[in-house]
Amino acid sequence: MAAPLNPRTGLPVVAMVGGGQLARMTHQAAIALGQSLRILSAGPDESAALVASEVQLGDHGELADLQRLAEGATVVTFDHEHVPTEHLRTLVEAGHRVAPPPEALLHAQDKLVLRRALAAAGEPQPAWAEVGSAADVAAFAGAHGWPVVLKTPRGGYDGKGVFVVPDADAAAALLDRHGTLLAEERVPMVRELSAQVARSPFGQVAVWPVVETVQRNGVCAEVLAPAPGLDDELATAAQELAVRIADRLGVVGMLAVELFQTAEGVLVNELAMRPHNSGHWTIEGARTSQFEQHLRAVLDYPLGATSMTAPVVVMANVLGGAAADENWSGPAVDERMHHLMAHWPDVKLHWYGKGQRRGRKLGHVTALGEDLAEVRARAVAAARYLADGEIDPAFAFDEEH
Amino acid sequence: MAAPLNPRTGLPVVAMVGGGQLARMTHQAAIALGQSLRILSAGPDESAALVASEVQLGDHGELADLQRLAEGATVVTFDHEHVPTEHLRTLVEAGHRVAPPPEALLHAQDKLVLRRALAAAGEPQPAWAEVGSAADVAAFAGAHGWPVVLKTPRGGYDGKGVFVVPDADAAAALLDRHGTLLAEERVPMVRELSAQVARSPFGQVAVWPVVETVQRNGVCAEVLAPAPGLDDELATAAQELAVRIADRLGVVGMLAVELFQTAEGVLVNELAMRPHNSGHWTIEGARTSQFEQHLRAVLDYPLGATSMTAPVVVMANVLGGAAADENWSGPAVDERMHHLMAHWPDVKLHWYGKGQRRGRKLGHVTALGEDLAEVRARAVAAARYLADGEIDPAFAFDEEH
Repeated sequence: MAAPLNPRTGLPVVAMVGGGQLARMTHQAAIALGQSLRILSAGPDESAALVASEVQLGDHGELADLQRLAEGATVVTFDHEHVPTEHLRTLVEAGHRVAPPPEALLHAQDKLVLRRALAAAGEPQPAWAEVGSAADVAAFAGAHGWPVVLKTPRGGYDGKGVFVVPDADAAAALLDRHGTLLAEERVPMVRELSAQVARSPFGQVAVWPVVETVQRNGVCAEVLAPAPGLDDELATAAQELAVRIADRLGVVGMLAVELFQTAEGVLVNELAMRPHNSGHWTIEGARTSQFEQHLRAVLDYPLGATSMTAPVVVMANVLGGAAADENWSGPAVDERMHHLMAHWPDVKLHWYGKGQRRGRKLGHVTALGEDLAEVRARAVAAARYLADGEIDPAFAFDEEH
Repeated sequence: MAAPLNPRTGLPVVAMVGGGQLARMTHQAAIALGQSLRILSAGPDESAALVASEVQLGDHGELADLQRLAEGATVVTFDHEHVPTEHLRTLVEAGHRVAPPPEALLHAQDKLVLRRALAAAGEPQPAWAEVGSAADVAAFAGAHGWPVVLKTPRGGYDGKGVFVVPDADAAAALLDRHGTLLAEERVPMVRELSAQVARSPFGQVAVWPVVETVQRNGVCAEVLAPAPGLDDELATAAQELAVRIADRLGVVGMLAVELFQTAEGVLVNELAMRPHNSGHWTIEGARTSQFEQHLRAVLDYPLGATSMTAPVVVMANVLGGAAADENWSGPAVDERMHHLMAHWPDVKLHWYGKGQRRGRKLGHVTALGEDLAEVRARAVAAARYLADGEIDPAFAFDEEH
């Protein structure tokens, strides 16, 4: 079956499941390529649904909605990992292209499946076990020590579904609630890294510099590109690891390999098979953004250059803070944007148009430059001001601004 | 009257008259700022209408359509200059913000109005006269020589409405057809330049480096940023000229001042008060693009940094060529894009999604780098391949690519 094209433009139609900020930013990239992203959105007010022309409202768990999305699309891809595998297999059997393929995507959906695959491939990862009882956990702790990290195999994100348990009783309570869990040793890590790679069906791959991801309360707060002070050899090893995983699993599109850096090297934490928060910096910071690259990869277009556009790039997330509270009496978001632009004319703003709630990812900012400390301070202060309405003293507003 | 905001996002709603590629690229910029551009489009297949969520179909010459567009919008702005001044005045009188204001916009709509204003301001421009008869033209030629350049005061663009006439008979024929015309001396120019400036209602201005625009058959073919070999003093003078004009006319938003460079300096050719083809290079080539800056300016947001992201940036237009012909038997547009991406992984593509016709602006490409000759060759070859399906021998496809 020849892949369908838009009859008006002669160009592909990429359909994305999910209407969040990843779909929103992918639509921006699609526009440059002459396309318009077709989006399956849970509601009309989702981040991407507010800005795209071809929005289908529906449920990513409903086969009929997925079939409607796939009809006439060149390829179906994802802004999240929550689509049931059996539905994707049904789409593939009906002749639709799905990228990444369901068999690959499973490794980003189920942490136990990932752990088994990495073990079979001999790739570095934390010690782990599948645990169904408190006795299983105690046995694992006997070998690796308390506390033990317990994870729900599916459905976790941004720190949800991850528990650090001190003893067998706490483990028993979690197992009662969640059933079978993944147990992992608590890794003595130096920091977290992310290695992103794009892979096309043809097998072409492209990597970006490995970045450091700074987490707060299990949520990505900052991304530093490239990862400061990262040994060249280790950086290359991390990129090669990401490429090996992409190849072995048959990933099509973007793959983010989240890594723990330890004294000995890197261990794979988890995978995302889509544009990822750790790659937002590429919009301005790399010649080809992860969003454009994802489109190129899922369409089997040749991949774009990934060189950096500045020596140092820092992305800071805007997580809903004090200014998201209902009783907030400080400057409203429009006014905060005014101030942000006045004080940081070279910081790039990305606002997702979502309703403001504490802890929610509302947008991000990107700063570029030469000096890490300066660039990072600028990005973090700008993001903090948007979130909390609070000014870092180093950037205090004064008459001279 | 307080300017309306989108009640869902708390952010402004910019309404743009016209659904062409300028609106399309402005929408991309709006998405990053948390907004969605509201567009008045002549049809559903216009470039911007294909990619935006809030599209109103209507006629920019109909007051009722403009009123519908302005309703609930924070500000009304333009992707072209064809809206009747009286309609804009009606909108302003009803309390709507219009940017640029109708009195400023008139200078981009009517070349005679512009010439009079520049004369009153003492700004450099070609010798000119308003001519209503062949005798008027002959008198003008008596002072400035044949040939004389005759221009329709309104409606011209991309070389349309511009005539180089050798004698009084040819002038008489044009005057019969068009009525009163603008006569200009044929300037002995070295090249054409463009100086872009953004201006906010607050009066803040921001300039980009002056660029060279390379025209073919009256249509912009390439833009070289910065203008190669341009004397620093002359560059600064051109920027200051653009700022003076923006201030004096009360421009709000982007202003492109198209200039003739002569042996003595620069002369003003014409103005555009919107994002302009001479600024497409800023999407990747400057920290803030002309599209984002236009939004910031019309919203009275503080303006963004305009520094270049590479020493040399070249934009080349893709003008419909052989590949736009109905009997074209070479690779279709989707296949040409594949080849383009394979051969120039670092060239940035912008495709407008329009139907392909000879001479039509279908898209543009941008190349960045250090060496003008190399960067320019890359951009021009990539654009030519998309337009004509022809490979520049210097970039011949071979096994090593």
